[in-house]
Amino acid sequence: MDRRFVISLSCPDTTGIVARIAGFLADAGGWIVEAAYHSDPGTGWFFTRQVVRADSLPFDADGLRERFAAVAAEIGPQAQWTVADTAEPKRAVVLVSKETHCLHDLLGRASSGELPVRLEAVVGNHEALAGIVEAHGVPFHHVPFPAAGDPRREAGKVEAFEKVREAVDAHSPDAIVLARFMQVLPAHLCERWAGRALNIHHSFLPSFVGARPYHQAYARGVKLIGATCHYVTADLDAGPIVEQDVIRVDHGDTAEDMVRRGRDIERLVLSRGLRWHLEDRILVHGNKTVVFR
Amino acid sequence: MDRRFVISLSCPDTTGIVARIAGFLADAGGWIVEAAYHSDPGTGWFFTRQVVRADSLPFDADGLRERFAAVAAEIGPQAQWTVADTAEPKRAVVLVSKETHCLHDLLGRASSGELPVRLEAVVGNHEALAGIVEAHGVPFHHVPFPAAGDPRREAGKVEAFEKVREAVDAHSPDAIVLARFMQVLPAHLCERWAGRALNIHHSFLPSFVGARPYHQAYARGVKLIGATCHYVTADLDAGPIVEQDVIRVDHGDTAEDMVRRGRDIERLVLSRGLRWHLEDRILVHGNKTVVFR
Amino acid sequence: MDRRFVISLSCPDTTGIVARIAGFLADAGGWIVEAAYHSDPGTGWFFTRQVVRADSLPFDADGLRERFAAVAAEIGPQAQWTVADTAEPKRAVVLVSKETHCLHDLLGRASSGELPVRLEAVVGNHEALAGIVEAHGVPFHHVPFPAAGDPRREAGKVEAFEKVREAVDAHSPDAIVLARFMQVLPAHLCERWAGRALNIHHSFLPSFVGARPYHQAYARGVKLIGATCHYVTADLDAGPIVEQDVIRVDHGDTAEDMVRRGRDIERLVLSRGLRWHLEDRILVHGNKTVVFR
Amino acid sequence: MDRRFVISLSCPDTTGIVARIAGFLADAGGWIVEAAYHSDPGTGWFFTRQVVRADSLPFDADGLRERFAAVAAEIGPQAQWTVADTAEPKRAVVLVSKETHCLHDLLGRASSGELPVRLEAVVGNHEALAGIVEAHGVPFHHVPFPAAGDPRREAGKVEAFEKVREAVDAHSPDAIVLARFMQVLPAHLCERWAGRALNIHHSFLPSFVGARPYHQAYARGVKLIGATCHYVTADLDAGPIVEQDVIRVDHGDTAEDMVRRGRDIERLVLSRGLRWHLEDRILVHGNKTVVFR
Repeated sequence: MDRRFVISLSCPDTTGIVARIAGFLADAGGWIVEAAYHSDPGTGWFFTRQVVRADSLPFDADGLRERFAAVAAEIGPQAQWTVADTAEPKRAVVLVSKETHCLHDLLGRASSGELPVRLEAVVGNHEALAGIVEAHGVPFHHVPFPAAGDPRREAGKVEAFEKVREAVDAHSPDAIVLARFMQVLPAHLCERWAGRALNIHHSFLPSFVGARPYHQAYARGVKLIGATCHYVTADLDAGPIVEQDVIRVDHGDTAEDMVRRGRDIERLVLSRGLRWHLEDRILVHGNKTVVFR
Repeated sequence: MDRRFVISLSCPDTTGIVARIAGFLADAGGWIVEAAYHSDPGTGWFFTRQVVRADSLPFDADGLRERFAAVAAEIGPQAQWTVADTAEPKRAVVLVSKETHCLHDLLGRASSGELPVRLEAVVGNHEALAGIVEAHGVPFHHVPFPAAGDPRREAGKVEAFEKVREAVDAHSPDAIVLARFMQVLPAHLCERWAGRALNIHHSFLPSFVGARPYHQAYARGVKLIGATCHYVTADLDAGPIVEQDVIRVDHGDTAEDMVRRGRDIERLVLSRGLRWHLEDRILVHGNKTVVFR
Repeated sequence: MDRRFVISLSCPDTTGIVARIAGFLADAGGWIVEAAYHSDPGTGWFFTRQVVRADSLPFDADGLRERFAAVAAEIGPQAQWTVADTAEPKRAVVLVSKETHCLHDLLGRASSGELPVRLEAVVGNHEALAGIVEAHGVPFHHVPFPAAGDPRREAGKVEAFEKVREAVDAHSPDAIVLARFMQVLPAHLCERWAGRALNIHHSFLPSFVGARPYHQAYARGVKLIGATCHYVTADLDAGPIVEQDVIRVDHGDTAEDMVRRGRDIERLVLSRGLRWHLEDRILVHGNKTVVFR
Repeated sequence: MDRRFVISLSCPDTTGIVARIAGFLADAGGWIVEAAYHSDPGTGWFFTRQVVRADSLPFDADGLRERFAAVAAEIGPQAQWTVADTAEPKRAVVLVSKETHCLHDLLGRASSGELPVRLEAVVGNHEALAGIVEAHGVPFHHVPFPAAGDPRREAGKVEAFEKVREAVDAHSPDAIVLARFMQVLPAHLCERWAGRALNIHHSFLPSFVGARPYHQAYARGVKLIGATCHYVTADLDAGPIVEQDVIRVDHGDTAEDMVRRGRDIERLVLSRGLRWHLEDRILVHGNKTVVFR
């Protein structure tokens, strides 16, 4: 694909925003290949994402940032914006536990080039995964977590999370992917990684928050099970939702069948959410997302 | 379609049940055109539904019931069973309020013969619907409910529900369909009509129980909205789930868009659930359903 | 909903188009509530649809058309555009045959106000439908078609189609809806109604063109069946596709089951396609559609 | 999971088949945990699959086969049946080319134990895959195929297929999986591996048979793209269909986007089809399948 610049902006809605941005790009000769707009009547905010061919502009990404800053300033003080450059590859760190289906899926997608990401590292609490991760050319960091009965459990957890933080922050990644990590992230990490940490929850939220959602779904007798990709916040399973999907189940499915069949949805939902995040398609506002697919 | 007998049975699971039923039918020359079985490992119960060509048996529906009672008795004292005869048309009464999409859908399906049902009556609290209901050849009963500010509201509701009960019970219907009825059924009617009253709730339960579920969904920022058909019980929106489905929404959908778009799912989910009920495809056990589609 | 103007435009792609349109609207004080753009790399064409609050502009629809004509002229001689006014209700005529499910569905949606359309007339070759159509306040025109064995069949068809044409053209409708009409429209009517005639075909095109598609699907043993809404062209079932959807079937579904179950998809796909047409969301280019949902 | 025996049988339909099988199992004390039946009115054939707990029977798999042979003989000379034992793991060989997404998916599912299969070998014409395949503990056989311009191409293909045959037959696998193999299997191998070779075709068959189906789909302007898992026969892309699924696309998707997004469906459809094959859930009759999911 040709090199492109991706401009994202959100601000209080008013007339003339599109004209200002489009005028700026037209004056500079910018060739827009994708453009999406959203005016939200509920919040009165405006959102846009525009993709411009890099070779149509007479300046580079930093030049565009400098000039666009002036445009954004005229639009107003609340305007939030970013300019991404597809020539700068996005980087991610993956956190995993024992359930490996999302990890295998991400490794396959990254190594085949299907997902536009460089996996910098995988951090996990089960050493057995090191082999296959490293076979894909990705470093594996083993960070053991204290077991359920451990008397030093709380302190041990604090230490383990400190090691996870170091392993993640060493790469300053664009995305921190909780690929069925199974540990609740402490509030200070949620805050530190706000807007970059994506989790996959194995239910159709807000149904079945918390532990063992498939078993909750089985007990309630639902006819569809789902998965939810969301940004991590300090409220467990309550962050801004990025993507959800479901599959049909019936009386013949045990809770274990749901666990197995749900993996297909978890893989898909997480990989879609991650792709949109990497392509700067997601604008978060309050506890909701605008996703320009 | 040829005349058929539909046998449904549920009982504690053990070996030999299939052999006993199949043996009975084979001895009588019964030609089985559909057969479904389910052994539930969670509850230890067994469920079956069998469809037999009526002309293959040397006795009629009552004769079959008499003989099958003996088979069921041998299977055990907890066995519950029914024998339906497709020559006896199923009958339904529909309860509606202002939202008419499910009503229009059911009238169309019934009048074209697509849904195997005789609509005996429609009971509603808005007289405006009388014309179109009667144009389909179905009697309309107008039962006004007291408005929100009415000082005699509670007493008025009791009287109104008594009229609804009379209008329904006059037909002893096989199905009482709450097609967006918008009034919470009192407990004594839930009990009276247990296993016959089907409701459509406009969310993917157990998410968004109660009032204005689409507005709840909008506020949470979910990416799919749904509808649920369930048997009515005294616990609001908590009865056994019969069918659910969803459609995709995004940031461009307002709460009003969700209300409108959700109607497509409500129509489908209610008509599917009702069909399965009418065809004796649903066996309820505890708060869950076995649906032999 | 507030009154709105809907601007649609397509033209060869180049830089500055968005800026020109947005600049024009901003200068006039136009408040854009929806905006969608598409640059098609395959054809090199550009497409946009913009929705403006009528009360934000100092002129009415005709005033907007006059001014926008000048903008479009500057954009280039190939630019095609329309301006619709939501205060002018869209009007449709429905053509039907014996299969009534789509008709019932459209009548229900129109009469409840769910679909933004005035049904001007229904034209059908089976008189039995007159009663229910007229009960919805819509005139019914009975136009009998010659039966299969009729020696004057071809001449009779020509006469019948002439009557259909008259009944349709008397209303100059925005949409002519072939709701399972079952007669192949002659080429001169396809041309006359180009871009306004929508058909529902009961298969997932391009699979199973022509007669009895569900029986073709049954014979091939497919695991999903579908329906397709497309603009009518002289090539049978080959016009620009507007919308498609599918449902799962299995070995237990006979061809007759597929006919029955497919109706749910036909209803949905036709009503969605018609809505998008009425809301000016569809731009046709060559044999493909851009649908700004 | 407990050890189980899986009995599959198909035969011309008549009364008493269920009674005979159920009676045999009941007499032996067999505990049936899953049972499915299908009477096909089109062909007049009967199909069943029954799953019995191994520890409920007083004989092993071979003992069951011996006794069941007598039951099947009584049912009739056309009865076809198999008895599988879940204690005997199923084995598969995977054939691949350059597109690796299905391979990665199968390796992940097999190595995590999600898919009940032992991958005996991967055969491919691109050596680059050897590393990752072997990292999963699976042998990789490199069989180069002659390139497009090669003057000895036909002879070279014959030799290459002979090597593929040897590599496959060395394992007598239960499944030969063409995971985007991209080479048309010669007729003698289709016949040799009949009922064991599963292919994934990247379209919703029968639409878009043959080469570059996504590009065909793009050209036609369809609104859904799909994938099909089918048994391989000498007729290209025309074998019995096992599973199909689709995803929504729109005008914004280029042919390349369809290639990328279609991979998600290919992975799912192939892995589902393979699972059902491995679990003896598929009974082939003529060119259609009965799939007892």
